[in-house]
Parts: sequence; structure tokens; C-alpha cells
Amino acid sequence: VALRQASERLEEFALIRALRGRFSHRDAEVIRGIGDDAAVIATSPKQWWHVTTDMLVEGVHFDLGTASPEAVGYRSAMANLSDLAAMGAVPRYLLTSIAIPRRCTAAHVEQLYGGLMKACRPHGVNLIGGDTSASRGGLFLSLTLIGITRSGQALLRSGARIGDALYVTGTLGDSLAGLQILTRRPSGRVAKPHQRFLIHRHLRPTARVSEGQWLSRARLASAAIDLSDGLSGDVRHLCEESRVGVDIELGAIPVSRACRAYAKASEQDPTQLALSGGEDYELLFTVSAHRQPAVEQQAKKAGYRITRIGVIRPRRSGLRMRSQTGEWHPLPLTSYEHFCE
Amino acid sequence: VALRQASERLEEFALIRALRGRFSHRDAEVIRGIGDDAAVIATSPKQWWHVTTDMLVEGVHFDLGTASPEAVGYRSAMANLSDLAAMGAVPRYLLTSIAIPRRCTAAHVEQLYGGLMKACRPHGVNLIGGDTSASRGGLFLSLTLIGITRSGQALLRSGARIGDALYVTGTLGDSLAGLQILTRRPSGRVAKPHQRFLIHRHLRPTARVSEGQWLSRARLASAAIDLSDGLSGDVRHLCEESRVGVDIELGAIPVSRACRAYAKASEQDPTQLALSGGEDYELLFTVSAHRQPAVEQQAKKAGYRITRIGVIRPRRSGLRMRSQTGEWHPLPLTSYEHFCE
Repeated sequence: VALRQASERLEEFALIRALRGRFSHRDAEVIRGIGDDAAVIATSPKQWWHVTTDMLVEGVHFDLGTASPEAVGYRSAMANLSDLAAMGAVPRYLLTSIAIPRRCTAAHVEQLYGGLMKACRPHGVNLIGGDTSASRGGLFLSLTLIGITRSGQALLRSGARIGDALYVTGTLGDSLAGLQILTRRPSGRVAKPHQRFLIHRHLRPTARVSEGQWLSRARLASAAIDLSDGLSGDVRHLCEESRVGVDIELGAIPVSRACRAYAKASEQDPTQLALSGGEDYELLFTVSAHRQPAVEQQAKKAGYRITRIGVIRPRRSGLRMRSQTGEWHPLPLTSYEHFCE
Repeated sequence: VALRQASERLEEFALIRALRGRFSHRDAEVIRGIGDDAAVIATSPKQWWHVTTDMLVEGVHFDLGTASPEAVGYRSAMANLSDLAAMGAVPRYLLTSIAIPRRCTAAHVEQLYGGLMKACRPHGVNLIGGDTSASRGGLFLSLTLIGITRSGQALLRSGARIGDALYVTGTLGDSLAGLQILTRRPSGRVAKPHQRFLIHRHLRPTARVSEGQWLSRARLASAAIDLSDGLSGDVRHLCEESRVGVDIELGAIPVSRACRAYAKASEQDPTQLALSGGEDYELLFTVSAHRQPAVEQQAKKAGYRITRIGVIRPRRSGLRMRSQTGEWHPLPLTSYEHFCE
């Protein structure tokens, strides 16, 4: 299953790359087009706009049998907020396109919007437009979220340089563990509070919006991406856009106590959950050597959990990871496709 | 069928209004949120950005049995371009979200993009981003298009004033006539060139982008909307947003020779095709009394076909139309829902 998912995603990326090459006419004010977490446009000499769009499709990204419309709305908004967090942008404007199947009621649509706004309201996002349609298939939700930075201050995927340290925020793998608890047979051997924590991390992820702004405003990070496809896939995107390689220390990857307990009970490698688990919505970012002391000091002061997990290498050395026993392996080609069966 | 479609659309509008009331937090720079053809944001003291999003759903807005992926892409882009035309904005940036069913091939997706870009390229639109997903239902396409005007120069739905004249560009009803020719039994009694003209108007509509910019730049029009739902429905939107009534002269509505010939052969009232036919993508706009001479003179010089079809009245007099025999009727509650059966 994992392999099929990976190949589907790889085809998607190949298709997007091909279209980028063929169709993307780019005027001077387009700082970044297709390929980053969001497009970046210089709207004035002082300001950049960041525009991201994400689609959630019933039966592909969610199942209304296991997720409420409210949860779908919340997670959909969070995926977009996370794209902007990875740019260091302040989220500002939201547009929503929703295709609604006949079996959905007005109450469902209201719950969906309730979830959207629950995620967006703390950030002061304005709902400025959208489109609504009937659907003969399932529920479709496409969001466009616009954020702002000062000009020149965005975090891009392409800024990583050889020798930069690779960091992540928070802990990885929790969301996948939470999903497994929700969809597989109950894990009686994992303490209830751990299970609740992991399920919450899955259903109520938090985009690292303030961490992204912190990293971009003082130009602390050289590059960033959000972890939506899983560490393995997203570190690949970052390295491709920056044209670099990477060495990752598997033993350094931050895994929560709850995730460790769940991994033990379900006889899985917790690092594997962290590598392949999508939708953690943590930030993966790089920091040049001379800024690392400032980053670590400021993170501590602000209460941001950040962990150094590797170092950027020349492109020719490839994407490698070192196991806790010291062996080097190539980064696996796994990419977690959301709720996909 | 018409009644069911109308009630579906009315429910949609009611839902959108309710959501606008409950969720739309509006910061000072948001000039227009939900409710106009596009949202309007003041991005700098000199510039306004216009953001519109439109969704096309297989089985609702199109049928891949009768429309090619290229036509779907083209028409989808044109619907968005028309929204910006109605604001008088210069179209600039496009984002595309596409959910692709398993039976669609890479060639289909390329054709879809080909249609999109065929519509957008003449306007120099930049494709800056998007999202792609599998679909377990049909093909879904959600576009977000961003355009620009100088600040204060946008045409809004809300600017119509009592005494303003009501104009339309081009001819109305052609698209519906073309659709009927495509989907009903052949109309042998209508000359082939007329049939070709009407089918072309349906499959290859033209958004009135340059007309919209002309009307906005010199502040010639007081309000505008594009005709996507049909004259009857769209004049209602304009009057609601401007809080006015309207008198329409049915005899003045411009109908093409081809549409007249088709209406006669199919025993329909051509005015009815014009009132209820959607997707003409002409502009409906209002002009204050003292600007009418300038508007008519400049239109003639530029080769823009515009026709005066009515006058704006106080809200209390309602939405009325006068038949060619001089009787007054209330504007009918019909709203054409695209390709929907």
C-alpha cells in the first residue's frame, strides 16, 4: 500500500513539474511560482503576498464515516495555515470552494465552516469569498489562503546551503500514530492519556504559524518547509529545491513519549512513524552555522521546541540517514498519502 | 426542471448570505468580501487586488460525454476571467486545484491545462500554483484568479443609483441556444452558419475583459456584474447589492440574428432565451445620466457593442420588465444552472 501511495504522489509531482515548465509564464513580480509551499508575489515595494491552495477530497483525504464535517473543515484550514507557516507569512484572507453532495445537509455545511473558522479565527483570517456547488460525487473542499510578509522576508524551500543545520519543531509521527489508533483495532496496551494525546495530534493539528514568523522576521532560517507528506518526503522536496543533499541522524528525530509507547505496543519502529507519517504540520528548517546559537537561545526563551536532526550536504552526497547503530542508509522513498486506503 | 434549478440556486445564495453574516470578519483593507464578483483587497495605497474563485464539477457544470477536457478548461478559465472583467480588473495570477478520477489520463489533464492556458495566455496571466489530487467521484476543477486595478477604480455591484441607465454588452441568449443545439435534436430549419455561431458562443465564450477595464478606468460605469447566471438572475444580484429596483424594456434586449432564427425555428421566445440563458459572459452595467453620451460615443469609437435595456428605479418599485406590447410584469425568478439536467 505504501508503495502504491508513493508512486501516486511521485506521478503527481512529476505532472506538476511538467506543467510548471510548459505553462508558467512568470512576470518580474512573481517571486515564487509553482513548487514552493505557496506562490509569492511582490504586491508593493514593501510587501509580499503568499498564496496557497489545497484541496481535500472525500474518499481520498478523508472519510465522513470516521471524520466529522467540523474536523474536515478544521484540518483543511490547518493544512493551508501550515503552508503559510512554512513561508513565515501572516495568514490574512481565505476563499472556500465547496462541492456538496445531496446527502449533506445545511447543518453539515455549517459544521464544516465552523471547523474552518475555528482554525482560522485565532489568526484573524478574513473569509473573503468562495464558490458553492452541488456534487454528484463526494464532498470536495478547495481552500485558497493568502498571507503576507515584508518583502524579502519569506522562508523558501530553496535557501538551504551546505553546512546549514537541519531542525524540526515539535515531535514527529504523532499524527500517524493517532490515525492508526482511530482506524485499527484498539491498542489496549497503550495508556489512555497517551492515546488521547495522539488522537488529538491527529484530529487537531496545530500549524506552526508563530514559529514560522519568528524564523522569517529575523531571517534566522535559510529555508523551510512544513511536514505534511512526512519527514522523508518533505526533506526530499526541500533538498530538491535547494539543490543540496542531507545527512539525517535518526536517533535525533524527536518522538513524543506517547508515540514511543504506542510504537512499542504495536511493534513498530517509532522512527519509521516519524519518517513516513504525514500531517504532523511541524516545520522543517535549516539554519546557517553562525545563526544556530541565536536560534537555539531564542527558541528556548519563547518556549518553542526545536530539535537539530541533521546537516545539509553537497548534492552529490545524496539524501542519507544514519541509524542509531551508526550505519548509513539512503532516505527511503516513502510518502504518506493522508487518509488514503 | 427550471423551478428545481432556481430553488437550488436560491438555497445556495441564502447559505452564502448566512455564512457571510456569521463568519466574515473584515479588516479595513478588505474593500469587498463575499457577495461581489470578486473579493477586493487594498494591497497598497495605489492598488487593489481582486480575488475570485470558481468551481466546475463534473455532472453539474459539465459532462465529459459532451465537453472535451480542453473545453472544460477553457470555459472554467473564462468564467473566472469574466468575474474579473465585471470588476474592471486586469487578470494576473491563476491557481488551479484539480481532482482527477482514475479514468482520466495524463493526456486529459494536459488538455485541460491547454484549455485553461488558451483562455488565459492572451491576457498574460501567470500560472503560479495549485493542488492536484485523485478523485473517487468525478472531475473537479477549482480556479482562483487574481486581478489588479488602481485603488478606487473597481466596478462594484453596489454602485447603481436611481436614474442610472442599465446597459449590456454584446447579445444575450446565444450560449443557451448553442447548448440546446448541441444537446437536443438537430434544428434542421436553422441555417448552418447561425448554428455554428451559436455553438461557438456556447463553447468559446469571450469574457469582456477589455470592456470592463474601459468602463472602470475612466469611471464610466457606476456598477457592473457579469452575466453568468442569466440576465434575470444577475440583474437581481446587482439590484440587491445596490438596494435599488429596475425597469427593463424587453424589446431593447439585444438578441443576435442567429439566436432569433433559432428561437423562431424552435418555437421559443428569443427574449426568454436572453432572460434565462446563463454563461453569455457579457457585462451588465449602469451609467449615470450625465455620463451616457460619453459612454455611447466611446463605445462606438472602440467598436464595443453596448445596448441600453433599462433604468434603475427606487427599491420599492421592485424589479419589473415591460413587454413589447407595453404591459408590466415582475422579473421572473429563473436562474439557469449551467449544464445541469
